[in-house]
Parts: sequence; structure tokens; C-alpha cells
Amino acid sequence: MNPHPDLSSSAARALSEIRRRGAVARVDLVGPLDLSFATVSAATTELMEAALIEETPDTAAPGRGRPRTLLRLRPDALHVAGAKLNDGFITVAVLDFCGDVLATASTDVPKGRIATALLVEQLDRTLHAALRGTALEKGDLAAFGFGLPGFVETESGLCRWSPLLSDAPVNVRDALSARLSCPVVIDNDANLAALAELWFGKGRHETDFLVVTVEHGVGLGIVLDGALFRGARGLGAEFAHMKVQIDGALCRCGQRGCLEAYVADYALAREAGLAVEPGDRDAMLEALARQATEGHEISASIYRRAGRMLGLGLANLVNILDPPLIILSGETIRHHHLLAEEIERTLRANALSIDRPPVRLSVHRWGDQLWAHGAGALALDRLAMAAGDGAEARQAG
Amino acid sequence: MNPHPDLSSSAARALSEIRRRGAVARVDLVGPLDLSFATVSAATTELMEAALIEETPDTAAPGRGRPRTLLRLRPDALHVAGAKLNDGFITVAVLDFCGDVLATASTDVPKGRIATALLVEQLDRTLHAALRGTALEKGDLAAFGFGLPGFVETESGLCRWSPLLSDAPVNVRDALSARLSCPVVIDNDANLAALAELWFGKGRHETDFLVVTVEHGVGLGIVLDGALFRGARGLGAEFAHMKVQIDGALCRCGQRGCLEAYVADYALAREAGLAVEPGDRDAMLEALARQATEGHEISASIYRRAGRMLGLGLANLVNILDPPLIILSGETIRHHHLLAEEIERTLRANALSIDRPPVRLSVHRWGDQLWAHGAGALALDRLAMAAGDGAEARQAG
Repeated sequence: MNPHPDLSSSAARALSEIRRRGAVARVDLVGPLDLSFATVSAATTELMEAALIEETPDTAAPGRGRPRTLLRLRPDALHVAGAKLNDGFITVAVLDFCGDVLATASTDVPKGRIATALLVEQLDRTLHAALRGTALEKGDLAAFGFGLPGFVETESGLCRWSPLLSDAPVNVRDALSARLSCPVVIDNDANLAALAELWFGKGRHETDFLVVTVEHGVGLGIVLDGALFRGARGLGAEFAHMKVQIDGALCRCGQRGCLEAYVADYALAREAGLAVEPGDRDAMLEALARQATEGHEISASIYRRAGRMLGLGLANLVNILDPPLIILSGETIRHHHLLAEEIERTLRANALSIDRPPVRLSVHRWGDQLWAHGAGALALDRLAMAAGDGAEARQAG
Repeated sequence: MNPHPDLSSSAARALSEIRRRGAVARVDLVGPLDLSFATVSAATTELMEAALIEETPDTAAPGRGRPRTLLRLRPDALHVAGAKLNDGFITVAVLDFCGDVLATASTDVPKGRIATALLVEQLDRTLHAALRGTALEKGDLAAFGFGLPGFVETESGLCRWSPLLSDAPVNVRDALSARLSCPVVIDNDANLAALAELWFGKGRHETDFLVVTVEHGVGLGIVLDGALFRGARGLGAEFAHMKVQIDGALCRCGQRGCLEAYVADYALAREAGLAVEPGDRDAMLEALARQATEGHEISASIYRRAGRMLGLGLANLVNILDPPLIILSGETIRHHHLLAEEIERTLRANALSIDRPPVRLSVHRWGDQLWAHGAGALALDRLAMAAGDGAEARQAG
């Protein structure tokens, strides 16, 4: 049930623009799409006939007489679901065509590495639980998006390595689609965060930005020219292992001086032993953050170093990619107030700025539901891509 | 005299493919361009009528009977010129449509920063000298490409800062085109190197690669998906100022720990004082390289550290951009043998490689004429871009 691949290229472009704008008059599509009014009309008629968009009166507009007609997405045009694997649990969200979350569910899995078979089993179960809150069944889903940390090839569906999978390399996409009986797309979890920002969040009106997530690991999603950039060979953007100190702290990848080895929660926990009572990692990190907030010097200095290293890494990204906006997100960013000053200071001191506005830093505290929201965006994004490919293939033929 | 903007989109694509392949039969364009034979035929007829390509018999093909007909570029379809500003001199090259160099000329300018007015004056003079070796006049040039180090915005033509200009920010493109009476395009010099590799060099059969130049400064050109990537805001790829050591060596940009502060020739010269007789910088660097080659320990260690820092910087690029190929070039790379071992070792130790072929490192020793060759490629590239834009605008209209 994927109507997109049959769209013409101008209809596919009109659809993205309507999604981005929310509700828009036909005439207001002419400029942004650089199309004639006749072509816009034909494209929107096509979208109406495919039941992807609907008309709505512009009640907000001033003036007497009949209100203007706006176009907007039809929320029930299609539905997708998305999921994210975390350390110890899975979250699933079901989304309508507008990207609104209809239902979510979460289930626990063992902490650390799990087998793909168990993952698939639990994902299916969690999806069922989420669907129970809606009038939908599995067969109603146009696509399923799944994100996990690690080295993930979206094109092939292969997860080459993940800190949360015991049997990688493994084709997670094929395993999932065999079970769920719907098209599946998988990606690195930081890319989910970037897509969620692009489709529904702070990146909605931007074409170029970075999303950096900090929690169990450090993730980077790169949006260039309105689309995810996954590296030249599909496995790029490994910001976590940018070296910020030659021969520096030992990283779980086995190399030294990686950004992650200073910033990820395990790196903070490693130093926390000198500042707080030993115990469970999560408890130690909570105590560390509390003490740092209260002004305990050793605890604060642990966060300061993390902020400094993160700021240096961000400066290096800015010097290479030159984005106007960086969005910081993820669990550790809950404690942004402990990192903010050093991040900002180090970024400004090390990024080049040549009589132009410096990069904007934006903090987005979001929860696991929003990760799953991003997975839904991944599914919607794949449908849109398929539409573009279909259009190009037809033009070429 | 720019015939390109009138080309249809399929003709523009066919032209690039013919350029890449050298000489190719019509039928062999069908697959790579993903077009029908009828569309390919129409496109190549259009290119023949525009006098951009010509037919040639395939004398290399085996078999009896009439030889197959191949298509190739017409060298005299149009001509471009390119120039590069170096510290102390300017080089100009005149190229035909195939990118073959018809003539070159070089003139001295004062070392260090010069005024744009003097630059324009000397460029015009050097271009005249180069044209004297051909049957061409200034009015015969379809475009002029100019490269210089620094922060250059190709879109606006503005040079925001250059180590070789005294009056930046200044619109170098407008100043030049007013004098030369032909379309001018300017760019950062490392981007010239990348375009020269893409059009004529080691990148000819690649879609994704990096070119890193090391000499007075450190430059980076990024080719993604067959085109230059200039950063999200047109001023990216400042690899020189990637931080490889927090609070490290002082860079001429005023920041600390920049790659350039360990690798550029001024950085080597700074340490050379402990190894060789004081004197002129170029002479000291020559002596340093000679001693290092002969096994002098302090001299060799200066190059080893440079190689190590460059290897670390390259690893960081690989982890973010994931290119299959890096081409090293520039004056200092003449002494690649002194750097090679540390570059390779540090790159391998710090780049992630996940059961895939590691990035290939390729060394291209080239001279200043080839920089200018790259500037010619920039002019040809801009003509090709204009063709694509023209085609898109027509489709949209």
C-alpha cells in the first residue's frame, strides 16, 4: 500500500512542500517549486486523486467573501510505524501520514547485546501492543522504520556492527521484513534523530544542519541540501571516533583519543568513581550530575572536560561541513547545563568564522518516544525517496 | 560564446559521459545514462549540431567491415583559461574543450599579500603572454577560472580572506571579469586541485574522493557524487584548521592546535631552526628535507611529526565522510617519502574500518602548471553547470 512511486516528479515535489508548510494555497507553491501555475495545478490534482492531500478553507485569512482554499496532507492517507532499540528496551510508535503519533509502546529486552532473532520477536510484540491502541493492523502499515546504534548500511539493510547486537554482521532489515510482512528500512539511530528534526522538529525550515546525540554513545546525523548524508560509501558520519586527543583516553572501539571516550556515559562513569559512591552505573551518573549541579568541584570538572572535548569535535565538524545549525540531543544532553559553557566556549574558540554569522547551537531534550518518532520519519522518508526514484525512472524511459 | 546553457538535460548528461570516457559509441551511452537509444540518439544529434562533439571511426575495434563510429569531444569547440595565484607568482594555462593545455605562462608578483588591482593587472598580462603562444585572443575564451588560497565564495565571487591578498574581503570575480571581458569563476585553490583530478586526473573514474594539498597551507577539496562539495554555506572544507591537539601549536589563524600549524611549510620551517643553518625559508626547508632523507635524526623527526598529525587529520575526515580514495598533492608532498610511513600508520590506527576495503591513499606530485590546469577545469565545470541549470529551468517552465 505505497502510492508514492506512481507520482510524477512535480507531484512528489509538491507533496514535500505541502508537508513542510502544513497548509498552503496552490498559488503559493509556484514560487518555492519554481513551476508554472498550470504544472502546480496538474500536480496537486494528481495528489488529490491519489488521496494524499485534501482541501481545507483558509479560515485564518482576512477579507470578506468565500475563503481561499488551502491544501494539506490527509492524515489517514497512509500509516507507518517506527522503532528504536535502546540498551535494555525497545520503543515503537505508530504515525499517520502527517507524522502525528497515534500510539506508542515500549518493552524491555536484556541489557547489552541481544540476538537478532530475539530483537525481531520483541519488535513484533511491541508493534502489536502499539497497534492495539489504534484501529490499524500490521497489514495497514505502508512501511516500518527501525533505528539502532552502530554501523548500519541503509541500502543493503545490513547492520555491520552494533553495541546492542550479539550476531552482527546481520541483515536486520530482511529479518524484520520477513516477520512484519511490510517494507522495512533500517538506519543508524543518529540518522533517525536527524530525520525527525528535518520532518517534524527544529530542522523543518532548514536545508542544512547537524544533529549530535550524546548518551550511551555519541551519534551524528548530517542533513545536506534537505536530505540525509550517509557518507560516500553509506557508512560515514562516525563522529564518535573523531580523535580529539592523540594517544588519549581508551575508547570501547579499541582506539585512543576518540571523542566518545571523553563524552559518552561510560566515559563519564569511568571518572565518576573518584567523585561518587561506587554502584550501578546509572545511579553513579545520577549522583555525579547532582553533585556537579550543586557545585562539587571534581564532579563539575568531569562534565567540563566532556563539554570541552565535545566543543572541539563540533568545531572540527563546522570547519569541514560549514553548517548554519547544530542540534544537540540525547540522554546526556539532559545535563546540558553542566556542559553548555565549555561546549560553547571551545566551539567558538576553535571554529573559524569569517565575517559571517557563527553556527547556531540548539538543544533539544527529547525522550525515547521521539527516537521512535524519528524511525517513523525514516519510513515516510523512504516512501518519498521511492516516489522520487519512480519519477526519475519514468522521465528517463 | 557559451553554447552550453542551450543544451537539453539529456544532451548535457551525454556530454559529461563522453568527456569522461574519451571516445564512446552511441549504444554504449544507453546503459550509463539510463536513457533509451532513441533519447541518446537525439541527445548526440543535438551535441553534433552544437559542434561540441564529432564522430571518429573506432580503429581499435576488431572485426572486418566498416569500423564502428565513436563520439568524442571536439577540441576546438571552445577554449577556456585558468590561473592560480601562488606566493610570489601567477601561472596561467589556456585549455581546449578536451582540457588539453595549449599554452602556459607565468609571471612574478611580490611575495606575500598583494592588492587586488595589482593581481588583476598581472593576471591580464600573464594571460596575454599565454595567448601569444596560440591563435586565440581574449575574446575567444568562453570562461576564465581563477584559484587562490583562502576563504572564497564561488557563488558571490567574494574572497573573504586570503593569505595572499591585502584588501580582502573583495569581489575578485567582478574585478577580473571587468578586466578580461569574459565570464570568470573563482574558487579556493584546493577545489581547483579536486576538479583537475575529477576532470583529468586520478579521480576521472571516481565519484567520491578527497584531495588534500600540502604546501604553504593545507587545502582540502571534497568530491561527492561526482561534484565539488563546498560546505553547506559555500565556505566549508577548512581542513587546515581541524584541531589535532587541544591547545597545541600556534597557527597563523591565531588559534592553537590546527593541523596546518604542524604540517604547512611555515610550521616545518619553525622547527627547522634547530636542525639546519638559519637562512631563507625555502633554503632551510630544502636543507631540512635533504638532511632528513640522509637520516639526520632531528630533521627526520620534524617530518615524522608532520606525517603523524596529517594522518590523524585524514583519519578524522575518513570517519566523517567515508571516502574510498584520498589523493595527496602539493609542494610538500614532493617529500612524501619523509611523511609516508607516519601518515599511513596513523591513518590506519585511527580510521574505523568495518570489514570493508580501507580508504586508498594516492600520491600525486604535480606542479604549478597543473594548478592552472585545475583552474581551466573550473571554467569548464562552470560551463557544464550552466548547461544543467539551463536544462532544469526549461523543464520547470
